[in-house]
Amino acid sequence: MNITITGTGSYIPEVIVPNSHFLTAKFKTADGLAITNTNEEIIQKFEAITGISERRYALADHKASDLGFFAAEKAIDDAQIDKETIDYIIYAHNFGDLSADKNQGDTLPSLATRVKNLLGIKNPKCVAYDMIFGCPGWVEALIQAKAFIQSGMAKTCLVIGGETLSRITDEHDRDSMIFADGAGATILQQTEKGGNILAHASETHALDEAYYLYFDRSYESNITDKQRYIKMLGRKVYEFACIHVPKAMKSCLDQTNVQIEEVQKIFIHQANEKMDEAIVKRFYKLYGKSVPENIMPMNINFHGNSSVATIPTLLDMVRKDNLKNHHVKEGDLVLFASVGAGMNINAMVYRF
Amino acid sequence: MNITITGTGSYIPEVIVPNSHFLTAKFKTADGLAITNTNEEIIQKFEAITGISERRYALADHKASDLGFFAAEKAIDDAQIDKETIDYIIYAHNFGDLSADKNQGDTLPSLATRVKNLLGIKNPKCVAYDMIFGCPGWVEALIQAKAFIQSGMAKTCLVIGGETLSRITDEHDRDSMIFADGAGATILQQTEKGGNILAHASETHALDEAYYLYFDRSYESNITDKQRYIKMLGRKVYEFACIHVPKAMKSCLDQTNVQIEEVQKIFIHQANEKMDEAIVKRFYKLYGKSVPENIMPMNINFHGNSSVATIPTLLDMVRKDNLKNHHVKEGDLVLFASVGAGMNINAMVYRF
Repeated sequence: MNITITGTGSYIPEVIVPNSHFLTAKFKTADGLAITNTNEEIIQKFEAITGISERRYALADHKASDLGFFAAEKAIDDAQIDKETIDYIIYAHNFGDLSADKNQGDTLPSLATRVKNLLGIKNPKCVAYDMIFGCPGWVEALIQAKAFIQSGMAKTCLVIGGETLSRITDEHDRDSMIFADGAGATILQQTEKGGNILAHASETHALDEAYYLYFDRSYESNITDKQRYIKMLGRKVYEFACIHVPKAMKSCLDQTNVQIEEVQKIFIHQANEKMDEAIVKRFYKLYGKSVPENIMPMNINFHGNSSVATIPTLLDMVRKDNLKNHHVKEGDLVLFASVGAGMNINAMVYRF
Repeated sequence: MNITITGTGSYIPEVIVPNSHFLTAKFKTADGLAITNTNEEIIQKFEAITGISERRYALADHKASDLGFFAAEKAIDDAQIDKETIDYIIYAHNFGDLSADKNQGDTLPSLATRVKNLLGIKNPKCVAYDMIFGCPGWVEALIQAKAFIQSGMAKTCLVIGGETLSRITDEHDRDSMIFADGAGATILQQTEKGGNILAHASETHALDEAYYLYFDRSYESNITDKQRYIKMLGRKVYEFACIHVPKAMKSCLDQTNVQIEEVQKIFIHQANEKMDEAIVKRFYKLYGKSVPENIMPMNINFHGNSSVATIPTLLDMVRKDNLKNHHVKEGDLVLFASVGAGMNINAMVYRF
């Protein structure tokens, strides 16, 4: 029995927000102090580190569940399955459905239920739930789907990663420039001899690291409301990721008989271009190798960091030949790797 | 291989809120109209239907993650395991960490990560995630833990169900009287010949039913803020539960060789006493039987409906002989059954 990605889909929101959008922002430090650099300088430095020149925001009347639905429809079409045969819908997100005008996340009912409703799936045996695992949620939801298939509980799973981070970011925080909206969906199925998940690894580091990403008030101290936003100890996240993610990727690959040279693509969570490059460099260094060319497809430059959505949207682009210089074909071996709030890390070795 | 509940724990918050607390409430209809009955009449009718005479609210400085941590500590003690051997921490909830003074749910990081942090677990291989499945979340998380154990991904899982519903209820809605706070935790382990999960069943009904429980503004139309609360189409939920839950319970039991006469206890989600009695009555009717005495332990009278927490707290009470007339011993056969937002239903046959 193999466990195969038989379909992918993604939804890239229509609203393009270039870095120039932030020229008029009033950025503050974590202590609420004005930043002395000009916004031009801040943006230039931001782009040099993160690689982000523009990002996408959802249309005002679309919520995370809508984005997930759009992506799911495409994945179901791509897999050429009858939607009524889906055993599980797993929606990985972190903030629920956020409206453009109110920041209280809505998870009643779950986003997976909303997607099932929008898809019009009748079969009550199709079980729909949400899971929260920081940015690595999509890879982790694939691992859960793998468990359901291996244990005989499911044959076909729809796994969605989506988020509308633009609605939960603090406009006075430079990190708000990182975040974006989007959704990606994947059909994972039991097959006789399709592609296969060869190994996975997951970790939660929750001692000192638990609150490296956290929820807190605006950096603008004149704002007295209780509204809280995504906050990040950027340097700590960066250091943590560079130390731990390469090791987790290696421990995952080393569970298989696959040699490092056989890895054709690494789909890494698009958090920050420089950080992702550093992680991949260290990963190869663990094998005494340098990074091969074109190993790491990236769409962060134009899509920003859409959290749970970055890998499934990237995978969809590459599978469908929509990203220059990056293609996958039957037999190709790839690695998925992700890091985020929790602090959670995971990796997966997959053969197409 | 068996999959065994080796430990349970619960945390019942200290603040006791009797029905008389609501004598001064200004209840409105869904249309924002004043209710002509007196509060005495409203409360009397409420108590007759739901069986609730008092409920528990969390202390102001405790959040859902704290309640889950208190329950988890007890479950770990009860199972007599080394906390560092836990492979998964699954926290089933629906609203995240709610503070007493702000209603924006906090899931950054996940509640499971927070519990892992509070427990001081070092092992990074202990994977912590949250899941959202309405009130049936604890049973569903057990099913997920079962999948991890069956597929060889885990040997020991900590499954928590918790909620602080008192912080997300509308004081102008009579249904606010139903809801309560609490948390229950369970250790599920692979064993050679301990107790065992014999069968499970899960359903999501998401066509007309998806929004029977939903998030919306206060019934008091003079309140113009955007704060949203749990809302319920009570009659529809009641009818849905009475029709579908007994059938799901039967389909679960019928997967096993167990005869209906062998079922010694039914642990049903404590949503509403009359509804639970009607469900159990219909379940027995499907077998042409009447309901045996003392089949259904209940704590709703004093604990209210704490959503995901009701079954694991009830189970903990009964396992530890803390509920009059209800005991379980090795070899006893029980059913778990739950229904809630989604609309989700699940059931599980377990032999102690």
